[in-house]
Amino acid sequence: MPLIQVDMFKGRSEEQIREFVAAITLTTCRVLGCSAGDVSIIVRDIPRSRWATGGVLATANSPPP
Amino acid sequence: MPLIQVDMFKGRSEEQIREFVAAITLTTCRVLGCSAGDVSIIVRDIPRSRWATGGVLATANSPPP
Amino acid sequence: MPLIQVDMFKGRSEEQIREFVAAITLTTCRVLGCSAGDVSIIVRDIPRSRWATGGVLATANSPPP
Amino acid sequence: MPLIQVDMFKGRSEEQIREFVAAITLTTCRVLGCSAGDVSIIVRDIPRSRWATGGVLATANSPPP
Amino acid sequence: MPLIQVDMFKGRSEEQIREFVAAITLTTCRVLGCSAGDVSIIVRDIPRSRWATGGVLATANSPPP
Amino acid sequence: MPLIQVDMFKGRSEEQIREFVAAITLTTCRVLGCSAGDVSIIVRDIPRSRWATGGVLATANSPPP
Repeated sequence: MPLIQVDMFKGRSEEQIREFVAAITLTTCRVLGCSAGDVSIIVRDIPRSRWATGGVLATANSPPP
Repeated sequence: MPLIQVDMFKGRSEEQIREFVAAITLTTCRVLGCSAGDVSIIVRDIPRSRWATGGVLATANSPPP
Repeated sequence: MPLIQVDMFKGRSEEQIREFVAAITLTTCRVLGCSAGDVSIIVRDIPRSRWATGGVLATANSPPP
Repeated sequence: MPLIQVDMFKGRSEEQIREFVAAITLTTCRVLGCSAGDVSIIVRDIPRSRWATGGVLATANSPPP
Repeated sequence: MPLIQVDMFKGRSEEQIREFVAAITLTTCRVLGCSAGDVSIIVRDIPRSRWATGGVLATANSPPP
Repeated sequence: MPLIQVDMFKGRSEEQIREFVAAITLTTCRVLGCSAGDVSIIVRDIPRSRWATGGVLATANSPPP
C-alpha cells in the first residue's frame, strides 16, 4: 500500500520496465511520504490488438512505443 | 473516461474483438452522451484454466466461445 | 464471463446506469454470441478529483457528464 | 458476486490452481454465506519481471513459488 | 504477492470482513505454500445499483447478503 | 495508454493527490518516452478496514498516512 497497477503496450525493454518501477516508487515515496517497501507495482503488457480508443484497436496505428 | 476493462475467455477472433470494441464504444457514447474519443477499452484474454465459477475451473467444460 | 468493469465519472443518473448495463449486455451478446446471463458488469463511480489525464485531475475542468 | 481477482507469480502447477480456486470458493461461501455458484475467480499469472516491491522487480530474487 | 482483489455487495459486517480476510489468507498460504505476510487483500464494497448480471442491476432483487 | 490505477489508503489531502498525479505522469513520460496526454491515472481511496496484509485488516494499526 500503495498498490500501483499499470497497463501499457507490450514492447518495452526489460531495462525500461526496471527503470520505470524504480522511478515510480521513488516518486510515490517522495510525494506520499511512505517507505519504498510499502509500494507494490504490477505491470501488465497489453497487446495493441487488445486496447481500443475511440472504438478502434491500436493495432493499425503507429509503431511500437 | 469511461474506461472499460473486459475479461473474456481466450479464443475470440481478431475480427470479433474489433467488432466488439467498435460496438461497445458506440453503445457507450449513445447512452452516456460522451464522445468516442473518450472511451478506452482494454480486453484481457483469460485462459479457461484461470477462470473458475462455483470453485471449478472452466477448463473441463464446453468448447470455445 | 465476459466480465466488464467500467470506471466512469460519478454523476450519472440511476436511469442512465440502468440503460447502460442493459445496452452493453445486449451488444456483448450480439457480437460475442454469449447469453445475457453470462455477462457481468461492475460500474465504479470515480470522483473527478481522482482521475487524471496529462497529469491534471479532472476536477477543474468541464461540468458533469 | 463475490468476484475474486488474484494476481500471483507465474509458475504454479495446474493442480495448485485447481485446488486454490476450490478452497477459496469454499472459504468464501462459509464466511460470507453465499452459494458456490455465486463465486467467480480469475487468476492472473504475473511474470516476476513485471512485479516490483520497493522499486525492485522480483526477477532477481528467490526461485519460483 | 499473491494480491487478492475482491468485489462484493456492500452490506457485510465489519466482523464478516475481518473473518473473511483472515480465512482467505490462511487458505491461500496452505494451498500455495506462501507465508501470510505475502498475502494482500483489498475488498471493494459495490452497491447493488452498480452490479449487473444479465443486463439487470442487482438493485431490484433479493435482500442484503 | 499507459493506464495507471492506484489503490491507496483513504486520507491523503487533495493537494497530495494533485501533486502525486502530476509527478507520476512526469516520471512515466520521462522513462517510457510517451507524452503526458497519453497517461491516465485513476486513484482509488481504500478504507483501512478493507485492506489486509497477513490476514489482518489495516484498521487496527498505525495512524493515517
